[in-house]
Amino acid sequence: MTTLSPYDAMSPVIRVAYRAKAAAADLAPLPRAEKDDALLAIADALEVRTSEIVAANAQDIERAREAGTSEAIIDRLTLTPERVRAIASDVRDVVSLPDPVGEVVRGSTLPNGIDLRQVRVPLGVVGIIYEARPNVTVDAAALCLKSGNAVLLRGSSSAYESNTALVRVLRDAVGGAGLPADAVQLVPGESRESVRELMRARGLVDVLIPRGGASLIRTVVEESTVPVIETGTGNCHVYVDEHADLDMAIEILINSKAQRVSVCNAAETLLVHQDIAPRFLPRALDALADARVTVHGDERVLAYAKDTRATVVEATTDDWETEYLSYDIAAAVVDSLDRAVEHIRLWTSGHTEAIVTTSQQAARRFTQLVDSTTVAVNASTRFTDGGQFGFGAEIGISTQKLHARGPMGLPELTSTKYIVTGDGHVRR
Amino acid sequence: MTTLSPYDAMSPVIRVAYRAKAAAADLAPLPRAEKDDALLAIADALEVRTSEIVAANAQDIERAREAGTSEAIIDRLTLTPERVRAIASDVRDVVSLPDPVGEVVRGSTLPNGIDLRQVRVPLGVVGIIYEARPNVTVDAAALCLKSGNAVLLRGSSSAYESNTALVRVLRDAVGGAGLPADAVQLVPGESRESVRELMRARGLVDVLIPRGGASLIRTVVEESTVPVIETGTGNCHVYVDEHADLDMAIEILINSKAQRVSVCNAAETLLVHQDIAPRFLPRALDALADARVTVHGDERVLAYAKDTRATVVEATTDDWETEYLSYDIAAAVVDSLDRAVEHIRLWTSGHTEAIVTTSQQAARRFTQLVDSTTVAVNASTRFTDGGQFGFGAEIGISTQKLHARGPMGLPELTSTKYIVTGDGHVRR
Repeated sequence: MTTLSPYDAMSPVIRVAYRAKAAAADLAPLPRAEKDDALLAIADALEVRTSEIVAANAQDIERAREAGTSEAIIDRLTLTPERVRAIASDVRDVVSLPDPVGEVVRGSTLPNGIDLRQVRVPLGVVGIIYEARPNVTVDAAALCLKSGNAVLLRGSSSAYESNTALVRVLRDAVGGAGLPADAVQLVPGESRESVRELMRARGLVDVLIPRGGASLIRTVVEESTVPVIETGTGNCHVYVDEHADLDMAIEILINSKAQRVSVCNAAETLLVHQDIAPRFLPRALDALADARVTVHGDERVLAYAKDTRATVVEATTDDWETEYLSYDIAAAVVDSLDRAVEHIRLWTSGHTEAIVTTSQQAARRFTQLVDSTTVAVNASTRFTDGGQFGFGAEIGISTQKLHARGPMGLPELTSTKYIVTGDGHVRR
Repeated sequence: MTTLSPYDAMSPVIRVAYRAKAAAADLAPLPRAEKDDALLAIADALEVRTSEIVAANAQDIERAREAGTSEAIIDRLTLTPERVRAIASDVRDVVSLPDPVGEVVRGSTLPNGIDLRQVRVPLGVVGIIYEARPNVTVDAAALCLKSGNAVLLRGSSSAYESNTALVRVLRDAVGGAGLPADAVQLVPGESRESVRELMRARGLVDVLIPRGGASLIRTVVEESTVPVIETGTGNCHVYVDEHADLDMAIEILINSKAQRVSVCNAAETLLVHQDIAPRFLPRALDALADARVTVHGDERVLAYAKDTRATVVEATTDDWETEYLSYDIAAAVVDSLDRAVEHIRLWTSGHTEAIVTTSQQAARRFTQLVDSTTVAVNASTRFTDGGQFGFGAEIGISTQKLHARGPMGLPELTSTKYIVTGDGHVRR
């Protein structure tokens, strides 16, 4: 007969969290070279063991097809040898990024002679809750490892076989490189209960990052006692000012809305200054029609639709707050820039808002008054992205104000600590 | 008969939160000079209206005495003309601090020619829940105003009259200076329910900062859906390494423990390397006795107590996690620096830990392995303080890893936003 230790009596979720915490303590002081070696080992292992990964993925795809899953979701779920190679290549890109850990953020010698340094340190244990995109499994693990964090991965149950195979490969590579394999772990259990346990593991998990639909994010924000970084909901606006280059305005509008509709930085609402509406809207409505976009317009927009090719339906209040993620856009005519700002303040999710204007004064006022992660002047909303911003990688786009706001790169996966160095200094 | 608007139907707490949100929108774009003028108006008004404030405070003190409140708490509650002048002087100090808003944190021109700027912006609405210290009312309001935030103040009901008088003076001064008076508001209601409403006002309140006892902080952390910054619990450690200057070690120990016992950066546990214990502990125990400190020692500490003047009791497990805030200290002998680190990792609240050592290697290992807001080398734990760190002011000491860690000054009361400026840039 064996006796159970308290450790054995823990739930499987809490047990992996304890192991992650221990691994995080080992990772924290590691120099960059050791972490980069582990990342290179991961990239190599992904390529060497591609067939094992693709075979596991095939099981998920078969299950998804049997369940009648849409082709769009199956496409996101699918791993081909080519896609695995791309994922491995992304890991090598992370190797080339600077290590944020150890960076001196602030430093001075105090009047009493004490040396004060604020240095970046890993957060510790990062939990990621995400949808059926197996590439996130590797991306998140690579970014966490590079920044000295242990990661707990809670992917969608529809990607269970893929994630299990990927994490096996990741752990083998990490362990083989001499780092703790528990730096990368899958959260066991496919039930909601395992997510709930993760959300209550305060003291073990340092931050939870939910990536996925609005309802998942809301649940995590409301039920978690672990600190959360809210990501991703994007009800983005394009405001066309009274002073705007019409060609530029149409190009930015169509790019923001239709270059890729399923992403959080796609535009969902068009606001047009009343003085430019007669010249802009007829052309814009035709351009939207050509891009297969349905317009949900207010009364004043509807009035401009008559002689256009546009598909226009009357907007309801719901349209102002909807993140369509489809070939739809809400549209309204506003009396002034300040009315546009008011509309945005009232309805935005705070992701990205763009102004198209030739007026320096208007650009300045819009950027001052609009409080979102990103304010774009004469540029598409689609630029709000870690890769586009030159961060080299992105763990998500934070739409909250605390800790990180906007695209999150490696520095956003760190905290800081102060080092106080004296010669026997005491306080008088 | 009057009809109620939806605004009238709101609870009083939600109503002040809406007004704070509107005020925050007005404050955000204000230049430094306007905010500084309001702060100077506050300092002047506090001095001019001292008698009104002291009279209100006298009512709180009378109530507290009738309720049999301890003299220590009554002392913290008491406002004298001299103390009001000191508070006004603190406000003038805030005027001299740089404005964090508008600071460009990061900036570059992207390869495609887009200019990217990350700039500091106010958080928006900051809620402070605090104990019976009326000076916090003014300090918090001044720091929030300087950083462009509206503040919701929820002080202790035992300071109700004082806080009401102070907020009246603050609002008159802010309004008189042409800024929205609703930038400073007291949360109405003295019940727990009003705190609960504040904690659920997600979307209206941007961050809650609880300042007070451990149970208040735990409640806010667990029940709030608004983001929280956890502050203040300090189970701080002093570790005396095998290589340590004995005189320095004793001076740092006594200063850390006894210079002021009721504060979060006071030491609560002493750890001593076994090889220095025979030389250090007898002297240290006498020094602690002279400082009127009771020692809660493990077996090995007790063995050294025989021929000393020390009051020593046997430590229980509880002692390792207790924040005494009194003339008590837990003490243990450890086999090595790594055992000291393990002890700290297991029991610390993550505030401040100090090492006393002459060994560069030991100092380096300790600062690498200990993960607390502040790690002190040959310096007292008492230096972890915004004033000591040269921040000029402090809204609290964050013991969490997200957003801010350690003493929080003005920059910690801000978020950032990205400004993307192009010439019609679209994404390909």
